[in-house]
Amino acid sequence: MTRTIKLAVIPGDGIGPEVIEQANRVLDAVLAGGDAVLERTEFALGAERYLATGDTLPADEQAEIAAHDAILFGAVGGVPGDPRLAGANIERGLLLKLRFDFEHYANVRPCTLFPGVESTLKHPGEVDFVVVREGTEGPYAGNGGRLRPGTPNEVATEVSVNTAVGIERVVRYAFETARKRPRKKLTWVHKTNVLVHAGATWQRIVQAVAAEYPDIAVDYMHVDAATIFMVQDPARFDVLVTDNLFGDILTDLAGAIGGGIGLAASGNINPDGAFPSMFEPVHGSAPDIAGQQKADPTAAILSAAIMLDHLGLASESERVREAVRADLVSRGDARRGTAEIGDAVIAQLPP
Amino acid sequence: MTRTIKLAVIPGDGIGPEVIEQANRVLDAVLAGGDAVLERTEFALGAERYLATGDTLPADEQAEIAAHDAILFGAVGGVPGDPRLAGANIERGLLLKLRFDFEHYANVRPCTLFPGVESTLKHPGEVDFVVVREGTEGPYAGNGGRLRPGTPNEVATEVSVNTAVGIERVVRYAFETARKRPRKKLTWVHKTNVLVHAGATWQRIVQAVAAEYPDIAVDYMHVDAATIFMVQDPARFDVLVTDNLFGDILTDLAGAIGGGIGLAASGNINPDGAFPSMFEPVHGSAPDIAGQQKADPTAAILSAAIMLDHLGLASESERVREAVRADLVSRGDARRGTAEIGDAVIAQLPP
Ligand SMILES: CC(C)[C@H](C(=O)O)[C@@H](O)C(=O)O
Ligand SMILES: CC(C)[C@H](C(=O)O)[C@@H](O)C(=O)O
Repeated sequence: MTRTIKLAVIPGDGIGPEVIEQANRVLDAVLAGGDAVLERTEFALGAERYLATGDTLPADEQAEIAAHDAILFGAVGGVPGDPRLAGANIERGLLLKLRFDFEHYANVRPCTLFPGVESTLKHPGEVDFVVVREGTEGPYAGNGGRLRPGTPNEVATEVSVNTAVGIERVVRYAFETARKRPRKKLTWVHKTNVLVHAGATWQRIVQAVAAEYPDIAVDYMHVDAATIFMVQDPARFDVLVTDNLFGDILTDLAGAIGGGIGLAASGNINPDGAFPSMFEPVHGSAPDIAGQQKADPTAAILSAAIMLDHLGLASESERVREAVRADLVSRGDARRGTAEIGDAVIAQLPP
Repeated sequence: MTRTIKLAVIPGDGIGPEVIEQANRVLDAVLAGGDAVLERTEFALGAERYLATGDTLPADEQAEIAAHDAILFGAVGGVPGDPRLAGANIERGLLLKLRFDFEHYANVRPCTLFPGVESTLKHPGEVDFVVVREGTEGPYAGNGGRLRPGTPNEVATEVSVNTAVGIERVVRYAFETARKRPRKKLTWVHKTNVLVHAGATWQRIVQAVAAEYPDIAVDYMHVDAATIFMVQDPARFDVLVTDNLFGDILTDLAGAIGGGIGLAASGNINPDGAFPSMFEPVHGSAPDIAGQQKADPTAAILSAAIMLDHLGLASESERVREAVRADLVSRGDARRGTAEIGDAVIAQLPP
């Protein structure tokens, strides 16, 4: 009996299509001969589409995407400073809209320093942690505005909105994540000494949920201190949970110390399953190197592996990860093209 | 003719008093025999004072401090989790209150990797940049609150307040800073694609001020990307300008890659001179090692050097910096106590 998985593919802009192409090839290779079959629909969304038609995310397309089992997402963003994009905000209108509307409240971003990968740190130690970033509220809410714009008396506000419901569900997800890992540690990160309102709510909820997880060791770190530990002793981390903005910052930093942003994968998870979850490399669209086969598709491939896991295809996911691991060990300094890396990962897939 | 400089000293908590003691010894040594004389008043403020009297920053003491020429600040913060401090917020009530009330809008935090100092990075290159962090508004405004606290329907908001006046003055200060440096580069950091309101105001003002500084090369970076560059190629930075919260995060990270937070100095500058500026190490009170002569006073000593500069004592400032540089080169791996490092820096002071 075959199982059909409906996959929405949004390659997006810049290097997005190139890296997603390789992720799709790896998916086809690992699923070949198995019971699961991917039925793909591609959605041409992003800056290019916006420039061509003025659309960011039409409602009917969003509804179509919602009817899929999962979303594979490349990257969005046109050339920085492109005047034709000045009024647009593809990030808010497409990527964040999908995260918000599809309740991707657990933005899961693992950071592993694979054997054979050079870290930017002198003594990285054994880096293997996962950041669970809140994905649907906080400073990303978009609330706020500008009073007297363009005048000397302009005031701009940004309102971070944090709900008990929103915090509790992501904190709970993080505790569950920690429980599945051998070290059973959870570090929550905020800036409670300055952001006292949101900080108090986060603290109250972390403490309440922690009481249900006596097997998990919990500690707290201010976000500024967390950046220090991340470059001085990243091996200390197991699972981190934090708000949308701190998570954005910390996961780029984590990507950099974990062998580069070209390896950083993520899942935007809706754990309830009411909406399709979305899997995307952490990196951006990098228009400067787009179309040149220079981008590393590994982050996209590892994002596809997270997707396989999410879809219940654990052994397929593990095979992809093993292939990536094997490729990274033997990679050395050779500069390879995007498709070449895809080829190499496919060649390394265990049977 | 002697010049009397009225210095308010707030040693604060934890390791604050120890490191400030050494900074004061170095100040005495470098000023000895010169025209400038320090007249010090010490203010016992911080968690200890709060626990003893319930005071955080009484109005009359604040007025007294305001009548000084400069402030030397150690660190604030009691033992984390101390239940007696649960209701207090010494950081907001003392440190941030001074920064806000005294209009310390340019929070200047240099990051230099001194010769002889090991970086946590494998290939740091020549690290020598300065972060100009906005110090009086943004997400630190403290606006916001909690609706239905303690209930499942709790909502907490944090309102980042950004004014054209507040942004323009710090941006201008950053351009002036860049103009005085050989590379003449300014990188402004924000998250304009997500924080669109504040981002738009920052962008408008940076562009307007940039037009007055055609000699300065300006670029923009999202804060998440900035953390990547900071660990992959920190040598690219010259002057950075950013908001209060991004500046907080980036300067701890900068401290870590620049040889450790034990070397990171700062000045909270009120360039208009209406209020005394305040000089403090970036590190915290580290209650776990307090009173054990384990803290490195170098950050406090370098903060005193920034103060000397600000007070127009440029050659004294340079002598302190040279002494620190000489001490760091010869420091090696030896573990020395707080006072020992003070002694060593004094011994290295050029005549
Ligand atoms: C593109 C941008 C809106 C996005 C974010 O800030 O979340 C990106 O930086 C990320 O981390 O996925
Ligand atoms: C103690 C805290 C309020 C302070 C800040 O966040 O500004 C500190 O982290 C700093 O960087 O000086």
